[in-house]
Amino acid sequence: MTRLVNSPDDFPSQAVAGLASAFPNHLRPVFGGVVRAARTDHKVALVVGGGSGHYPAFAGWVGPGFADGAVCGNIFSSPSASQAYSVCKAADRGAGVLIGFGNYAGDVLHFGQAAQRLRSEGIDTRCLLVTDDIASAGPGEHLKRRGIAGDLPVFKVTAAACEEGCDIDEVVKVFDRVNERTRSFGVAFAGCTLPGADEPLFRVEPGQVGVGMGIHGEPGIHDEALGTADDVAAMLVDGLLADRPENPGTRVVPIVNGLGSTKYEELFVLWNDISRRLEAAGLTIVDPQVGEFVTSLDMAGVSLTLVWLDEVIEPLWLAACDTPAYRRGAVGQVDLDTTQLPQEAEHVSVAATGSQASQDLADVVVRGLEEVVKTLSERANELGRLDSVAGDGDHGIGMTRGSQAALAEAKRVRGDGAGAATTLNAAGSAWSEQAGGTSGALWGAVLTAFGAVLGDEDPASDDAVRKAARAALDAVTRLGGATVGDKTMVDAMDPFVTTLESSADPLLQAWESACQAAEKGTRATSEMTAKVGRARPLGEKSLGTPDPGAVSFHDVVVAVGSVLP
Amino acid sequence: MTRLVNSPDDFPSQAVAGLASAFPNHLRPVFGGVVRAARTDHKVALVVGGGSGHYPAFAGWVGPGFADGAVCGNIFSSPSASQAYSVCKAADRGAGVLIGFGNYAGDVLHFGQAAQRLRSEGIDTRCLLVTDDIASAGPGEHLKRRGIAGDLPVFKVTAAACEEGCDIDEVVKVFDRVNERTRSFGVAFAGCTLPGADEPLFRVEPGQVGVGMGIHGEPGIHDEALGTADDVAAMLVDGLLADRPENPGTRVVPIVNGLGSTKYEELFVLWNDISRRLEAAGLTIVDPQVGEFVTSLDMAGVSLTLVWLDEVIEPLWLAACDTPAYRRGAVGQVDLDTTQLPQEAEHVSVAATGSQASQDLADVVVRGLEEVVKTLSERANELGRLDSVAGDGDHGIGMTRGSQAALAEAKRVRGDGAGAATTLNAAGSAWSEQAGGTSGALWGAVLTAFGAVLGDEDPASDDAVRKAARAALDAVTRLGGATVGDKTMVDAMDPFVTTLESSADPLLQAWESACQAAEKGTRATSEMTAKVGRARPLGEKSLGTPDPGAVSFHDVVVAVGSVLP
Repeated sequence: MTRLVNSPDDFPSQAVAGLASAFPNHLRPVFGGVVRAARTDHKVALVVGGGSGHYPAFAGWVGPGFADGAVCGNIFSSPSASQAYSVCKAADRGAGVLIGFGNYAGDVLHFGQAAQRLRSEGIDTRCLLVTDDIASAGPGEHLKRRGIAGDLPVFKVTAAACEEGCDIDEVVKVFDRVNERTRSFGVAFAGCTLPGADEPLFRVEPGQVGVGMGIHGEPGIHDEALGTADDVAAMLVDGLLADRPENPGTRVVPIVNGLGSTKYEELFVLWNDISRRLEAAGLTIVDPQVGEFVTSLDMAGVSLTLVWLDEVIEPLWLAACDTPAYRRGAVGQVDLDTTQLPQEAEHVSVAATGSQASQDLADVVVRGLEEVVKTLSERANELGRLDSVAGDGDHGIGMTRGSQAALAEAKRVRGDGAGAATTLNAAGSAWSEQAGGTSGALWGAVLTAFGAVLGDEDPASDDAVRKAARAALDAVTRLGGATVGDKTMVDAMDPFVTTLESSADPLLQAWESACQAAEKGTRATSEMTAKVGRARPLGEKSLGTPDPGAVSFHDVVVAVGSVLP
Repeated sequence: MTRLVNSPDDFPSQAVAGLASAFPNHLRPVFGGVVRAARTDHKVALVVGGGSGHYPAFAGWVGPGFADGAVCGNIFSSPSASQAYSVCKAADRGAGVLIGFGNYAGDVLHFGQAAQRLRSEGIDTRCLLVTDDIASAGPGEHLKRRGIAGDLPVFKVTAAACEEGCDIDEVVKVFDRVNERTRSFGVAFAGCTLPGADEPLFRVEPGQVGVGMGIHGEPGIHDEALGTADDVAAMLVDGLLADRPENPGTRVVPIVNGLGSTKYEELFVLWNDISRRLEAAGLTIVDPQVGEFVTSLDMAGVSLTLVWLDEVIEPLWLAACDTPAYRRGAVGQVDLDTTQLPQEAEHVSVAATGSQASQDLADVVVRGLEEVVKTLSERANELGRLDSVAGDGDHGIGMTRGSQAALAEAKRVRGDGAGAATTLNAAGSAWSEQAGGTSGALWGAVLTAFGAVLGDEDPASDDAVRKAARAALDAVTRLGGATVGDKTMVDAMDPFVTTLESSADPLLQAWESACQAAEKGTRATSEMTAKVGRARPLGEKSLGTPDPGAVSFHDVVVAVGSVLP
């Protein structure tokens, strides 16, 4: 249960502000996250990040010898591209920027967008995806796996290579090597609650253990009865030893990671059994780590990570570092950096006022967004529930935050005389920014593409709306790569747009028919969601992950329909 | 919920073994706990300790610049005197030993016994009681308060004085100064479960906050509805600012301590509000600490500690240290200590076999202990429940562990031909050792005193049993300091012994009458237990803490009665 909350919406930003304030000698706040407080010379910068709720990951690892900055998204939600861009710009020390994160769709999308923007400004920027969770994909799909507690050693070793003065290509090779040789396996005993929620994000039945469950409650392999600590040790050790990398060697760093409410004494009891089993398997234990490294709010559970050492990785792992939550050796005296850092994202500005006709259309946009906010607020719990079956449960929160931000920004620019295109573009940027997640980026693209067709001069026309809907669909399929049948929002959006285009009725009637077509498109997702169980043997490919994007798309277009003239 | 358990009885020892194994460069295991792995020269040794379940307190703080050793009791139970003795002997560096612990009755008793034994061997040993919890006694009773998260700064500052080469008298002065200037105030949101238990040790109603509740669930001041994080910040800051020490000054170290399942992001949100309020009160924040320092297994809750700095305390607080869970600055290179350390307590040996008559009597003792074990195992949950109303809920576990150990040891020495006195003495030592807590020490004294009267030669006699019962009562009142009406085991034991002595009936009938008298003596405790609520305003003296010792005393004598000839 998450209890110390002022406002659920402000929880992540207040947590980052509090963290930076508690560690003034380590961290400096910047829009989107934190960077090192220590002055740092020319070197490759490592920026790490992802959603919040996993402290010490990621902002607890910023400081000399470790990361240069951390991008802090909302709870369990990817940061936006502009957050990532802001932190990377502040962390850049002239030798290129590496953005390290666990392999989650929203992070891949947003960090990728940020990297593209940085490269367009001449900063050599690469994305590094950690893929250590053996339960999330089979042995043949190592690079498709999710990143969990392996983030700690993979980032630490990569950071040490940066600190040693390696160039960016050399550091990327070190990353590939340590990521390849780092494997994790986790179990969960009970779910966590998001700030402001009364119920846990997911449940594990009492007395059961969710084997292979992810750090946001993503489904694992199966549930089984919880045995002794040694039974858990056996499961974790056996699972990892069956999934060794090539040329494993015999020296390993074991990392026993508590997820939140599974406490230290339990971790030490478990470690007893794990260490005995690793030694019985002929392995040499080097520098074990037992504690909380990648948490999930107050989730109960534990993971074991093995880093299979080689002559490159071992000295980098053991190198000194000094961060809020991870320290070893002595990094020597540091000076504090006192340069100014930006604390806000740039607003979209209103370059020119729209025509009166387009301003009237922009008023319809604002009213439509008001209806969308109302609908999504009512539907947030249900969307979160659907998402938690196969995803990370943040869809309801993301859609609510995104639409609220879009409405506020639309009102702001509308007050400055914006037409329809500028209003929708500003609303789309705000949605993407505040929602985070894949769906945030996609809805940002929907609004922007829709607005581009409407323009800031033309009056409303049924034909323009139909064309705008097609443009929005094109943007979504281009950006997200999904087609009909992938159990995404495209399943509802494609029939919606096709019906809208092909209907000879006036817009209002055509929109209603299109909504009905969208509703049919949500069924594949619903059926799939009902089917996804936890009966996948370790190593088998997943069934795919239905997202509730089709359902929320239907919610949005129904809401918009209510304000059409 | 504590889930990673092999055997509840072995949980604490396995946790300490795992901890020592996970930090081989910091810790070395010794019977009773851990000592520094680093070779340490002549200096005053600081040994800290108490029950387990509070990691990083206490064993996470052992290392250069901090403690020399930690005594690790059972979960939430005081270590035994012989555990404390063993750790102190191993930690002694020739300049005296300080034993630091929170002010709990069992700790005071056992650490006091250990200090006495060390002094008798010529080692200058002093006990240092931390008393920072302002909710546990009024402002006029500062030195009667319990110790909670203030343990961290008080021990750290004291340890730095030891490290600087102060002599033992100087260090004691530093301790008194920092203990006087350290105040804490805590709240709890939900209880923790002991290893092996299915239900939490205590409950806080959902949506409520237990204000001033102790780290073992000791009753606080009152319960109230949980508000925002800032409401909690206001309560903690206002409570502490109303209880400033003399000459407080304006520089404070604030310590925000999570109790277990209240997680880091929540603590950072809370810290935002606390820091703003402290600054608004005109205070200068120095080196804030936000994290988990003194936990209570998976309890949900948080405490705020303020250390009111002065020119002596501030540099000692900031001095370098390197321990498993607390590090700052650089302590320089250390060598590992490789001397052998004892891993077991000494057994009571059978100096001479008893007479046949006394061996027969010893057989009755063994059978009596068998009945006691059976009864207490059945009654453990109820005794724990009674204890949790006003104490730390370990009475059922303690009595079960103690009686089981006593039976095993009695059987062992009986097999070596021991008479009644040797058998009871060995059983008493084992009970005290394994049960921990105040009641462990008292029951150890009961068995030893009872046996001393019976001797190893004399045959059984009704008269000897009556005299032995009186000797046992005398030992309990001498050691525990309680009299009838204090709501302790004496309430049942005194009428039991008096009735047994005064009855003209044969032993069996007299014993039954005495049991009835004991049963009446439990009523004051039961009524008191029912009355203890949480309606005490901050600063008022507590009602006293009824313990279930009277109830368990009655259980024991009834069980023993069933084997009397």
